[in-house]
Parts: sequence; structure tokens; C-alpha cells
Amino acid sequence: MKAAIYPGSFDPVTYGHLDIIRRASEIFDELTVSVLNNKTKTPLFSVEERVKMLKEATSDLPNVTIDSFSGLLIDYAAKKNINVAIRGLRAITDFEYELQIAQTNRKFSDGKLDTVFLTTSLEYAYLSSSTVKEIASFNGDISECVPDFVGRMIYEKYR
Amino acid sequence: MKAAIYPGSFDPVTYGHLDIIRRASEIFDELTVSVLNNKTKTPLFSVEERVKMLKEATSDLPNVTIDSFSGLLIDYAAKKNINVAIRGLRAITDFEYELQIAQTNRKFSDGKLDTVFLTTSLEYAYLSSSTVKEIASFNGDISECVPDFVGRMIYEKYR
Amino acid sequence: MKAAIYPGSFDPVTYGHLDIIRRASEIFDELTVSVLNNKTKTPLFSVEERVKMLKEATSDLPNVTIDSFSGLLIDYAAKKNINVAIRGLRAITDFEYELQIAQTNRKFSDGKLDTVFLTTSLEYAYLSSSTVKEIASFNGDISECVPDFVGRMIYEKYR
Amino acid sequence: MKAAIYPGSFDPVTYGHLDIIRRASEIFDELTVSVLNNKTKTPLFSVEERVKMLKEATSDLPNVTIDSFSGLLIDYAAKKNINVAIRGLRAITDFEYELQIAQTNRKFSDGKLDTVFLTTSLEYAYLSSSTVKEIASFNGDISECVPDFVGRMIYEKYR
Amino acid sequence: MKAAIYPGSFDPVTYGHLDIIRRASEIFDELTVSVLNNKTKTPLFSVEERVKMLKEATSDLPNVTIDSFSGLLIDYAAKKNINVAIRGLRAITDFEYELQIAQTNRKFSDGKLDTVFLTTSLEYAYLSSSTVKEIASFNGDISECVPDFVGRMIYEKYR
Amino acid sequence: MKAAIYPGSFDPVTYGHLDIIRRASEIFDELTVSVLNNKTKTPLFSVEERVKMLKEATSDLPNVTIDSFSGLLIDYAAKKNINVAIRGLRAITDFEYELQIAQTNRKFSDGKLDTVFLTTSLEYAYLSSSTVKEIASFNGDISECVPDFVGRMIYEKYR
Repeated sequence: MKAAIYPGSFDPVTYGHLDIIRRASEIFDELTVSVLNNKTKTPLFSVEERVKMLKEATSDLPNVTIDSFSGLLIDYAAKKNINVAIRGLRAITDFEYELQIAQTNRKFSDGKLDTVFLTTSLEYAYLSSSTVKEIASFNGDISECVPDFVGRMIYEKYR
Repeated sequence: MKAAIYPGSFDPVTYGHLDIIRRASEIFDELTVSVLNNKTKTPLFSVEERVKMLKEATSDLPNVTIDSFSGLLIDYAAKKNINVAIRGLRAITDFEYELQIAQTNRKFSDGKLDTVFLTTSLEYAYLSSSTVKEIASFNGDISECVPDFVGRMIYEKYR
Repeated sequence: MKAAIYPGSFDPVTYGHLDIIRRASEIFDELTVSVLNNKTKTPLFSVEERVKMLKEATSDLPNVTIDSFSGLLIDYAAKKNINVAIRGLRAITDFEYELQIAQTNRKFSDGKLDTVFLTTSLEYAYLSSSTVKEIASFNGDISECVPDFVGRMIYEKYR
Repeated sequence: MKAAIYPGSFDPVTYGHLDIIRRASEIFDELTVSVLNNKTKTPLFSVEERVKMLKEATSDLPNVTIDSFSGLLIDYAAKKNINVAIRGLRAITDFEYELQIAQTNRKFSDGKLDTVFLTTSLEYAYLSSSTVKEIASFNGDISECVPDFVGRMIYEKYR
Repeated sequence: MKAAIYPGSFDPVTYGHLDIIRRASEIFDELTVSVLNNKTKTPLFSVEERVKMLKEATSDLPNVTIDSFSGLLIDYAAKKNINVAIRGLRAITDFEYELQIAQTNRKFSDGKLDTVFLTTSLEYAYLSSSTVKEIASFNGDISECVPDFVGRMIYEKYR
Repeated sequence: MKAAIYPGSFDPVTYGHLDIIRRASEIFDELTVSVLNNKTKTPLFSVEERVKMLKEATSDLPNVTIDSFSGLLIDYAAKKNINVAIRGLRAITDFEYELQIAQTNRKFSDGKLDTVFLTTSLEYAYLSSSTVKEIASFNGDISECVPDFVGRMIYEKYR
């Protein structure tokens, strides 16, 4: 049984994330999407809200589980007994940063946690959670960026 | 059953390739390493020699099969009924080129062939088949780059 | 009549910006340089000061108008009925970020707002508003970075 | 009257090129698309064939003219009395190379020839003339890459 | 006598920094490692603590001196009468940023302060002060990242 | 005594190379500029011609010696008993490639040959030997790229 973790902020989940989730769920037998509880950042949505949104948005994917964690990914993965992390790549700057994280995680887990990268689909390459939030904060149309129920929750936050 | 293809020139296989092969063989149930028969290039080793070297170098990995192909990767993968290609990433220039290939393959296979990337281990980040060949051609020491039996075959070519 | 917008922070305007403004004013019939009123940042100069500096620094360019805006660029451009945004490019990191913004703007304006990029002249490639401010804050010489009257206004802020 | 040149190999023209041509034809009053006759390369199509394909593919754009040239772009632009070159950007590697060319052209034309960059539309970001030719050479489907009449001409070459 | 400065935050010094220091101390006759007192950042360690750690960690290198400075590097280097700055390079993003700083320093020192770059050793390429601090803050093992006495001082801060 | 090697093709030497040579000659006590005799390339100038041009162009720098070599740089540096190689950096693509070479040289010389990088001066950032040759081949003006006597030798080759 091949399992993988897809960690991230998902503040909120976008169609770009959902594209990675769907593709990773086809490549692996089990996929855990896990919201990072990063105490040094001020998110728009609470961890609970983000977990709930992810659950609703992935309800058609039977081998996908939603979870959350704080602390180091390598500790979380070890506890879950999972050896593969998934990350999506959009751009060069992403790549450099993600590469460093991937090397750090392999190093500090003694090779136990490997990272595999998927490239973001072209139609979502322009998308990021922060872009979606900025556009929504000025009342722009985000219907091509996030599922409708997520969009409604974002607009509510900015009202 | 999760299967993947690792396509490449492998002219010749290096410890960098073998690191990717070993890690991919742990992530997938079955891994096919396949030598691309690129008729527009002049390789040092024939396709047959490269297949033979790969077989010997991966003989301890029971879920790894060695093969070769010519033509488009998407046609080969469709015939094999495999939906995932593996690629190793070393550097920015790699990344851009590999990203384009991955997008092209997803596009032209109607989403059937996805690519997952692994990052080259740091200790092999300096390694490429062409570096190994250049050093060997000047009688340099390549024992940390390739298995011994591969090294002997390279020196023989340059004698 | 071909019109374009050059949006930016211009906090303060540098010779690098003025080089882009002059060149863009030769390529387009009308150029609107517009100061972004970004409420999440703490600028050194108020929007009004930045507009005034730009007006003085571009007074010899008859087809250049200075303005300011808040909110999304695509909304501002639609209201102005302008279809082209100008951006200067200095470096790779710039490029990735700017590319994403340009794609986002084309996408969210339904193709109505396109972005054209000019490359920063080599003699100004080292220049950024933040570098100028840092050097001025330590009483360094910025006479080759900004017009004299801008320099005086910067030193005044740090006194 | 604002005029621009879009120079390139166009061997053959793809939907990616046509996207740049259409967008540039909206930004400038007159656009000259000009095939570079590069004597050091072996193209698939002759300059005459490439000019003919471009003419047919842009016949609906009244302000677009097709031409060809050999030698330096700055000499050709000076003879045509045009001060702006257009280039499309796809990726980092592109960017670095194109930036150098743009700086060289500004330098060697004494500032007379400036370059403006447009970013390739996401849906064509995977496309290049050489990718199209490789796929066609293996009888792959290129109907989403080039106009039908161009596709037929490519297959004919490989027959 | 060839002297050089290696400026940085060193918050705290890592094996990556120590690798650059050792190599630079072999290339130059005298090396001054100097802690930047950046008043706009909140460091984990005071300037005095960072100087003390560097002194202990480089006590076996007789031609290395530890110092600290605030303000512009070019002013500090001029006062010290040193014409070369040393920087380590890890990645693309580093490179762009460092390149801009190096050009700025050459420009604003009238060519008196040049920068030479060394590439970080592969085994330390994953290392940064902030990675070390993040891992330590979750009680992770940092013994391969920093000397033992530095490690103890970091853990103490997070207790 | 601190000595360094600046290896390269120098086909032909440009003002960009001469800028690196002059700056490196101030940083090191002795600088050996050495022409690589690469048998797999077809240069415009013979190794002898390139050595002669470099000697004339650096005749005012007493601590610069001109030489040539074939084979691996690490073997040449070991024979010369020199531990530092100099390289100039222009761009991202350069950087990746040069980084790999530097790591390879450190690795295969057991840490004996280190590489230091200088950044190309902005006014020569557009310059490369191949650009100069292309412009000269079309009779363009290269007087700002190379010393006059080098320019005459290039035009002669293309006559």
C-alpha cells in the first residue's frame, strides 16, 4: 500500500490545490491532505475551517483523508508512518524553496521522508490562495479559482 | 498496483540515476527503467549496452524492470498501460525544460501520463553522464560516479 | 490612439523608473503613470507626495499623465478604458512574479488587459527604491539614483 | 503611427506565435512579422514557405505584414524605420537569453531599437516549433498546436 | 597582503558559514568575519552573542578576525581599508539578490569594494540559520548543522 | 603568495573578460589567464592567436601571465600548484552551469581547487565572444566590445 501526505496552508483551498489532490490520489493508494497549523502566521481561515472546506471539496475522492498538524513535517510523517510528501510546483522561486525543504526533510528524517513534485496544471498556474484573497477583498470574481461554497466563505470574511 | 516509468538516455547510468531508481522503486509497486533510443544523437554506448548495464546495476531491486523504446514517451507509456513518468531534477535549467516536457506529455496524452519529480540527492548533484565521460576521457578517477563495472566499460571505450 | 498604464509604488521614483517612463512614452501615444495606494504597506512618502514627485520628474514628457489608484489594476484600467499595462523587468525573481501578475490580469480581465515588459537599462539594473532609501538612511550619496529634488525629499524624511 | 517588428524563425508558425501576433496587432498600429533567414541553421521549411504560411494564418489581421530578412535585426529595423521589436516569453531560460538580445540590440542601435515582451498565453506555454515537429515526426496529433493547413504541410515533410 | 570581509547575520553561525570561512581563509591572507547589526530585524541572538560564537567556532583559524558593524558595508569596508567582500551562494534566488547587492556595492564605492562568491559545499546546501532555528524550536536534532556549543545555546533560547 | 587561474575560451578576448582579469589581478598576487584548447569545438582563432591577443591586451598588468592548456582544469591547476579558479558570472543560465563545474572541480580535486566568482560589470553584461563575432560577421561596429587590435583581427577572419 503506497501512501502519501500533501501538506500545506490551504488558506483557502483553490482549484490549483484540488488539481494536485486529484492527480496525487490517482498515483497513490492513500492520500492524506494535511493543514499546517503555523502559529507564526495570521491566516484568514482557522485550521478547523480549512479542514472542513477540504473535506467538502474532496468528498468524491474515497482514498483522500483530511487532517491537520503542527510542528515539523518529518515528525508528523513518522507518526503517520508515511514516507512520501507531495508538493505542487508553479515557478522557479517555488522550485528553489521547495527543493531546499525537500532536501532538508530527507536529511533530517535519515532518508525516510522523500518528496515527489507534481507540476501545476497550466490552467491553474496563475492561481494562489493570496491572489484569490486579494481579488475577493476588492469584490472581484473568483468563481474560476475556487469552488462556489469556498468563494462564499471568502466573501463573508471580507464583508 | 501502482506502476511508473523512468525514461532516459542512461549513457551510461550513474550513481545519480541509481539513487533516483532506488527511491522510485520504494515509492511505486513496479518501476520500468527505459532507455530512449534517440536516433538523432550519437551515444557512447549502444541501447543494448545501456540496457545491460542497467540490468546489472539494478539486479538487487526486484520490482525494477529494464526496457528500451523509441518514439514518443506518451505512445510507449500507453502501450505499457502506465500512467506515471519519473524524472530527477538537478537544477533550474533542468526544471524549466522538464516542466515543459511534463506539460506536453500531460497535454498530448489527454491527461493520461502524469510526471512526478524527485530531487537528486545532494551528494550526486554534481553528476551527469557527460561529466563522467569527459573526466574518463582524460583518464580521471570516476569511481565515486559510477559502479566499477560501468567505469571499466567507459575506460574501454576511450582506449 | 494607443494608450498604456505604468502602475507602481514609486516610493520614491528613481532614474530606473524614469528610464522606463521615457521609453514607454516613445512607444505609446499616451502613457498614464499611476501610483498604487496599497493600504497594507507603510510607505516613506504619501500617495500625494509620490504623485507630485512624478509630475515634476516627467514635466518634459507631454504625453505622460500622472495619477493614482487603489484596488485592482484590472478595474482601474477598465474604468480608464486602457488595454495595456507596462512593467519593467530587472531580474529572474521579478520575472516570475511579474509573469504571474500579468497572467492573472489577462485572465481576470477576460483578455482585455495585456501587459508588455521593458527591460531595465543596464546602468539602472542595480537600482530599486528600497536600495536608495537604505543608502540615504545612512547618509550615502544617491545623486546617481534619483533626481536632485527627490534626493532632497528623501534625506529630509530621514533627518 | 506606432509600428513594431516581430522577428523569429517561425519554422513553422504555431498557435503560440499567432497568439502573440494577434495581441501585438492590437497594441500597435502596424505589425511586421519577419522571418529570419539564418544561414547557419537547417530549417524544415524554406523562408518562402514560412512567409507563405504566416500570410495565410494572419490573413484576417489587416495591420499585419509578413516579410523576411537576413543579417542583424538592428540593421533591418533601421532600414524599415521601426523602433520596437516584439518578443514572446515562455520561460526562465528564454528570459535570460531574450534579455541579453534586447540589451545588445538597444546598445548597438544607440537606443533606437527597443524590445517589448509579451508573455505567452498559458494554454500555449507548452508549445514550441520543435516540439510540434518532433510529435509530427512520430505521427502524433498536432491539431491543437498549429492551424490545419500548417499541420498538413508538416506531415508532408515527414512522409 | 590580501584581505577580505565576510559580512552576514550569523544568527547563529552554521556549518555552512564555517565552511565558507575556512575556504575563504585559505584564499586570502586575512579574513574579517563581521556580524551585521541590522536594527530592523529581531534576531534570536544579540550581536555580542553572535560575535562570541563566531570567535569560539573559528579559534583554530589564525588569520580570521571576528568583528561587527552597523550601517553600509561600503562605509565599513572603507574604514577597514579592505577591498573584497566574500559571499556564499546557495541558490538562484540567493544569486539574483546577491548579484544586485554586489553591483550596488561596486557602484557606490566607486569600484573600491568588489565581491567574490564561493559556492556552498553540497553537504551544507540545505542549511540556513532559519531552518536550524525552526528545527530546534520543535526539539529536532541539529547536531549536523551547527557546532555542539552553538546547538546548546539555541536550545536554551527556545526553552 | 595567493595565485589564481582564470580559464576560458577567449575566442576572442572581450572587454568583459578584460574587466574580470583586471579585477582578479587586484584581488590576487598572481593571475594566470589560460586558454582552454578544446578539441571538440571549432574556434575562430587558434590557441596561439588567442594567447597572443591576451598577452597584448594585458601587457599593462605585471602580475598577469598568459598560458594555455588542454585536458581537465583540475589536472592543470595541480601541475601549476594553484588552488583557486576565477570565473565571471553574467546570468542565471551561466550560474547553474558554472556552479556545477565548480562543485565538480572541488569534488574531483579532493577540495584542492576552489572556484571564486566575480560578477560581470553591468556595462559589459550584454557582451559575449559569440555576440561580438556575429555582429562583426555582418560588418557591425564592435569598437565598444573589444580592443581595436582585436577588432581588426576579427574583421580579417570574416573577410
